[in-house]
Amino acid sequence: MRILGIDPGVATIGFGLIEAERANARLLQYGVITTPAGLPLSTRLYQISSDMSELLTRFKPDEMGIEELFFTKNITTGIAVAHGRGVLLLEAERAGIPVYEYTPMQVKQAVTGYGGADKRQVMLMTQRLLKMKDIPRPDDAADALAIAICHSRSATSLLNTERVFDPRKYDTR
Amino acid sequence: MRILGIDPGVATIGFGLIEAERANARLLQYGVITTPAGLPLSTRLYQISSDMSELLTRFKPDEMGIEELFFTKNITTGIAVAHGRGVLLLEAERAGIPVYEYTPMQVKQAVTGYGGADKRQVMLMTQRLLKMKDIPRPDDAADALAIAICHSRSATSLLNTERVFDPRKYDTR
Repeated sequence: MRILGIDPGVATIGFGLIEAERANARLLQYGVITTPAGLPLSTRLYQISSDMSELLTRFKPDEMGIEELFFTKNITTGIAVAHGRGVLLLEAERAGIPVYEYTPMQVKQAVTGYGGADKRQVMLMTQRLLKMKDIPRPDDAADALAIAICHSRSATSLLNTERVFDPRKYDTR
Repeated sequence: MRILGIDPGVATIGFGLIEAERANARLLQYGVITTPAGLPLSTRLYQISSDMSELLTRFKPDEMGIEELFFTKNITTGIAVAHGRGVLLLEAERAGIPVYEYTPMQVKQAVTGYGGADKRQVMLMTQRLLKMKDIPRPDDAADALAIAICHSRSATSLLNTERVFDPRKYDTR
């Protein structure tokens, strides 16, 4: 199964593509979609939409994993990221790709076996699991690969899998 | 000038279309885009994308005004609304329509002349300015019409006009 991990954002969106069979994960591709800071938000969203659409067409993932949003730190950042995340979810839906979401803790737990692992431990383990020479760069791409690994491991146990699509999780108006 | 006002959301998006010439505003159309609560978020975003695209094609607005997001009350709601708002901005960009954003206080100020006006005062004034028999319903549509009026009045004084597109307002990652 071909899994695309996505670390959502507006300035930088990380993506990581792996081929996973049971516990084995093989690296296929990773990188970032970036949008220039000087551009209007809606223009950046349009670029994200185009790049994501192209990425999905090119890589044809079977499923997508994406990070859930938490905003204890910076609400303004969270709002911007949510704008971008909306566009990313839209493109996945347009392409007919099922999307699953994971909290940062779920990703840490799945990759390192410990939900309290630090960023570097997650990166080192991601590198090791995907048999990479170096730690994947930039960070957003590394995060995306970790999310993809997390989904590959959760997907083998359906009990652990939670669809992003539960609208009850979102208090909408 | 044909102005489309948008009250962003996921469950209900209000829209209001007016024809404005200087201080005169004439009602053209208003209503809501709704998405069913039972559907996955990404499916709802897809519906919003389709409906918004159709609305822009049908009404051909020259400019669009949209409410700025504030989340002092409910961050979870804010995150969901921001997902929807991202898709709405994307469709405006795709259609080549310039977007301007206004805070709730700016809308109140522009419509009633008083930034601390309550919801009912804004609705009554919107009804009056657009020569409507009744207060526009539902609330989201009334809000959208008020935003359109706000833009029509701000647009005559360019000093008061603020593009939504200032990316520095959004702390992105």
